[in-house]
Amino acid sequence: MTTLFFQMVSIITAILAFGLAYYFFQWVKKQPSSNPKIAHVGELIRQGANTFLAKEYKVLAKFAAAAALLIFLFLPVPIWKGQWLMNLSMALSYLAGTAFSAVAGKVGIQIATIANVKCSEAATKGIRPSFMTGFRGGAVMGMAVVGSSLLGVTLVLLITGDTTSLLGFSFGASSLALFAKAGGGIFTKTADISADLVGKVELGIPEDDPRNPAVIADNVGDNVGDVAGMGADLFDSNVASMAAALVMAASLDKATGHGINSSMVFCYAAIGLLASMIGVATARMGKKGGPTKALNTSTYVTTGIFAVLTALATWLFQFEWRIWCASVVGLLVGVVIGFASDYFTDDTKKPVHYVANASKSGPAFTILSGISYGFMSTLPAMVGIAVSALAAYKLCEPLGEGYAMFGISMAAVGMLSIVGMIVSNDAYGPIVDNARGMAEMGDLGDEVLDITDALDSAGNTVKAVTKGFAIGAAGLTVIALLGAFISEVNSAASELGMGTVLTGFDVINPVVFFGLLIGAAIPAVFSAMLMLGVDRNAQRMVSEIHRQFKEIVGLKEGKPGVTPEYDKCIEIATHGAIRELIPAGLMSIIVTLLVGFIGGVQAIGGFLTGNIVSGLLLALFMSNSGGLWDNTKKYIESGQHGGKGSDAHKAAVVGDTVGRSI
Amino acid sequence: MTTLFFQMVSIITAILAFGLAYYFFQWVKKQPSSNPKIAHVGELIRQGANTFLAKEYKVLAKFAAAAALLIFLFLPVPIWKGQWLMNLSMALSYLAGTAFSAVAGKVGIQIATIANVKCSEAATKGIRPSFMTGFRGGAVMGMAVVGSSLLGVTLVLLITGDTTSLLGFSFGASSLALFAKAGGGIFTKTADISADLVGKVELGIPEDDPRNPAVIADNVGDNVGDVAGMGADLFDSNVASMAAALVMAASLDKATGHGINSSMVFCYAAIGLLASMIGVATARMGKKGGPTKALNTSTYVTTGIFAVLTALATWLFQFEWRIWCASVVGLLVGVVIGFASDYFTDDTKKPVHYVANASKSGPAFTILSGISYGFMSTLPAMVGIAVSALAAYKLCEPLGEGYAMFGISMAAVGMLSIVGMIVSNDAYGPIVDNARGMAEMGDLGDEVLDITDALDSAGNTVKAVTKGFAIGAAGLTVIALLGAFISEVNSAASELGMGTVLTGFDVINPVVFFGLLIGAAIPAVFSAMLMLGVDRNAQRMVSEIHRQFKEIVGLKEGKPGVTPEYDKCIEIATHGAIRELIPAGLMSIIVTLLVGFIGGVQAIGGFLTGNIVSGLLLALFMSNSGGLWDNTKKYIESGQHGGKGSDAHKAAVVGDTVGRSI
Repeated sequence: MTTLFFQMVSIITAILAFGLAYYFFQWVKKQPSSNPKIAHVGELIRQGANTFLAKEYKVLAKFAAAAALLIFLFLPVPIWKGQWLMNLSMALSYLAGTAFSAVAGKVGIQIATIANVKCSEAATKGIRPSFMTGFRGGAVMGMAVVGSSLLGVTLVLLITGDTTSLLGFSFGASSLALFAKAGGGIFTKTADISADLVGKVELGIPEDDPRNPAVIADNVGDNVGDVAGMGADLFDSNVASMAAALVMAASLDKATGHGINSSMVFCYAAIGLLASMIGVATARMGKKGGPTKALNTSTYVTTGIFAVLTALATWLFQFEWRIWCASVVGLLVGVVIGFASDYFTDDTKKPVHYVANASKSGPAFTILSGISYGFMSTLPAMVGIAVSALAAYKLCEPLGEGYAMFGISMAAVGMLSIVGMIVSNDAYGPIVDNARGMAEMGDLGDEVLDITDALDSAGNTVKAVTKGFAIGAAGLTVIALLGAFISEVNSAASELGMGTVLTGFDVINPVVFFGLLIGAAIPAVFSAMLMLGVDRNAQRMVSEIHRQFKEIVGLKEGKPGVTPEYDKCIEIATHGAIRELIPAGLMSIIVTLLVGFIGGVQAIGGFLTGNIVSGLLLALFMSNSGGLWDNTKKYIESGQHGGKGSDAHKAAVVGDTVGRSI
Repeated sequence: MTTLFFQMVSIITAILAFGLAYYFFQWVKKQPSSNPKIAHVGELIRQGANTFLAKEYKVLAKFAAAAALLIFLFLPVPIWKGQWLMNLSMALSYLAGTAFSAVAGKVGIQIATIANVKCSEAATKGIRPSFMTGFRGGAVMGMAVVGSSLLGVTLVLLITGDTTSLLGFSFGASSLALFAKAGGGIFTKTADISADLVGKVELGIPEDDPRNPAVIADNVGDNVGDVAGMGADLFDSNVASMAAALVMAASLDKATGHGINSSMVFCYAAIGLLASMIGVATARMGKKGGPTKALNTSTYVTTGIFAVLTALATWLFQFEWRIWCASVVGLLVGVVIGFASDYFTDDTKKPVHYVANASKSGPAFTILSGISYGFMSTLPAMVGIAVSALAAYKLCEPLGEGYAMFGISMAAVGMLSIVGMIVSNDAYGPIVDNARGMAEMGDLGDEVLDITDALDSAGNTVKAVTKGFAIGAAGLTVIALLGAFISEVNSAASELGMGTVLTGFDVINPVVFFGLLIGAAIPAVFSAMLMLGVDRNAQRMVSEIHRQFKEIVGLKEGKPGVTPEYDKCIEIATHGAIRELIPAGLMSIIVTLLVGFIGGVQAIGGFLTGNIVSGLLLALFMSNSGGLWDNTKKYIESGQHGGKGSDAHKAAVVGDTVGRSI
């Protein structure tokens, strides 16, 4: 079978995924919705999310245009030295990378802001139909993200025929992810903190109370942060893993004269998507077992199907079994990392109990013990990535030169094979979270609230898993990308008759070390800038909420017919997010360019390495301690250590607020 | 001039430093002390510190003996393959490294627990004599640490004649530092938090109130943490920088046939110590300007003298000017890093004001903004180390192969040339902190308290500088050490006719990457273990304090003649510190061995790199955010944002508690 065959298979699988997404979209749309109050709230959320996305994409379009121009002028070689057609191809691929990601994000927001309404209404009929609506809504995003990344990668390679352009596509996806994650993050954290600070803490009104002017912004935030932001992030990782594998496969295939390695990449990627489709399509909430079990079961199903089908394909098409093993190692480690994150955030495990108990001594101890467990939680993921990279390398080394690095990239492809499932589960979160808010605002009663609460809680639980997984996958992908980068540079050099010019990035080389240290500092500085941005933005929103409660007569008392000016809060969150993300984004880019300018390719290699090492550490720490504090608060609210209103609870609220912002 | 000449100069300089230390010791001892209450408290502190040190050293002695045995059996080559004499020499050097460091720590504790009493008494005569007593007390430790490290390195090289044993000496210093820092840290944090939690927060009695059963333990903690722990840390860095430089110098000298590079290392190291001696001996508190100015001025004086004298020596002995430049770059960057840390913790600068203002919204915002600025604060130090490494490399590269790495090690030597000054300033901190406590417990009156408060505050201010400097120096030293390690392995291999076996640690090599990721996780896990250890230990101490207040009649009311059982708290802190540090220390060592066992020398190279990168990040973050929270609390207590008792103050106290424990 030629590579073209597997490329066609990939395209067809992607189209099938779009078909499934379309079917789910229509299915969700067809679900009944009759409550005008909920419909109104849903409309406000939809508008808010779309407005934010439009504004954010406008800024990003300008940035992408500038970046594309620079690429056209300078990459892969300055235009006056090389072929302009090559540069044009890379620039256009870059733009395609941003555009595919943006479209997937837009689709996600569309479905999420319909599914939330339907999910809320479905809860009046029971937990199972409500779960189904939320899950299928999320699955639309999952299929859109993975389908479009597979389609994009295949088309770029088919059209341009060169792997350099593929790296351009991947770079486009990365730059969109950087901004979408940061922008969505600032928006959602601003709204979340402000709504809580004034609503729950100052006034003592419940979460999602319609009197709270920030309540709609809070719900919008869930969508733009967790659907669009996280989606862009995993789109990026998925594209990067495929691009890295394809670059190395192409270089290996060139040496052997046939396309078996490239074929294998496409084949495995298509099977990954197919497995996710099956996992998503067969997901059901059984009569026994809650929504968490349903979400986890579908992940296991996907994993199993992937392993079996790839084995079958490997046997059928005579791919290398060692590479198959590398992929499966990646897959297993991905699952292990996900569930290790769960340990640190699960309210039946030691960390949550410890932090809850420490909270009795005051908020300082909530923070300290949370930070401690957050630090601890970095170990399983770091070891997991390290071991999978090493195992894949050792497995594939005997196949010949170049195969070891290819093995690592295939481990990343394996790890990311379940990404369709992961994105689905992840997008499920904000949908059911929104649905919970709507049930509250639409006065659907306590029984319905209990159902949406259960769905929401399952969303929070799997969030720890999906976030851990996403971070782990990004880590493994980066070493594969570095390998691809070297392979790319060397193949370009050998075409010019220069032989191997780049063998790696030696940390003893002070140029690499220079890049390494600066690269390691950047994620910390970037997070700090975003956190301070959230802080400033939240201050603006809190004053606005205070103003509304002061100036709008009857709002505090909940006089019928009096509504707050929700749009003002949405506006603040939107403007603030865009205003605050620009300096952080620019800082990252300028520092990267500066390091490259000073130290060249070696410094950039070190920079990327430092970046991923400290980025992994911080991301794991922040994500896991955040989840831990969140669940500690809920654990205490469930009646432990004095329950709501106790000193332990007050301390846990402090921890939760910190966790939401980092 | 032969290398032997400069070795003799080094030994003489070290002996002069001991002479100065002895003079200061006697000078401090001669200062009057008449207050029996203070003498009693001083005696309790002295006993507590000595007991802890004795117990800690007992544990460490066992560990060191085991490690020395392993070294004898396996390093540099297994004893059955190589020469047993070589292994014996390395094992003995290792033991010497631990012993020299331990003795310096012991000397520091002796003088600190005398100087605190004298300093307190001197405060009754005015700020200037009191400052002088505190400063000269600290200087004894400074001279002891630097003198013994220079003496130790010189003697080991003179006696064994081989640089491998020098690395053994350095390794000994490192392993003592690991435990001394961790053990002292747990002790001081436990006592500090517990004393505050019950004293200030629960009972509302002032700091250092003699009724508080943990007050003596708190003062003991300052000594064992900041004098013995920090001293061991800087002893380690100083030895490592010299060892690394000497290893590379020896390899260069072997090629050229004369010892000019080794001579240069000894010459510069001796000048560094000499400059510190002059800086320390001439330090005075002027009639204008406070103690902070006096401390900083002596640092500047030392820096200037080092630059001028090394230039003179370079001209006189015809050393390479390029290497001189590298040293001066290191020195300047060290100073810049120190003062950059100051920015983030100074109460006249933006970060403290920002965090103080954020505290008005509650403790969550104190924490969030503090974490943000803590993250930000990593940038100047990381960039500083990166730039100094790169600049030194580029400066010395034209001198020929091997000189570039030697240049980096000389930058580290330059950076560490002011270490005598740094240790002096650092040991000054706990002396005046203790003196403040004694003034409180000895009822010396408000005027004296004002003086000791001013001295204490200067200690806190320079602490940010010294800590930043210590962390930066450690960073630069590690790359030099890695270079030395490679040079050592290669020269051993070339003696066996194997040529160059180790060229570096390539991050693209998955074995290195494996080590890198695990190495990066370890500092986080290590910190987490210590933090949880402090937490557990503090819980034990808090219950003990509660018990005493409950059972000892008249204690709470301050009935004359009723004293708490101070020794119980000291005992808890001592036992807890030793009990909690063992698992953390063992974890570090076992993981290191495991990584080496799985991945060999390449994995260890990656491991050390990951370790230093994430260790630097975390250390800078923790040290600077800790200092920031401390000063924010004090800033608010000075009357800002409502002053003591306001909501902002309560929030700042939470931040301060977190900062003290991380």
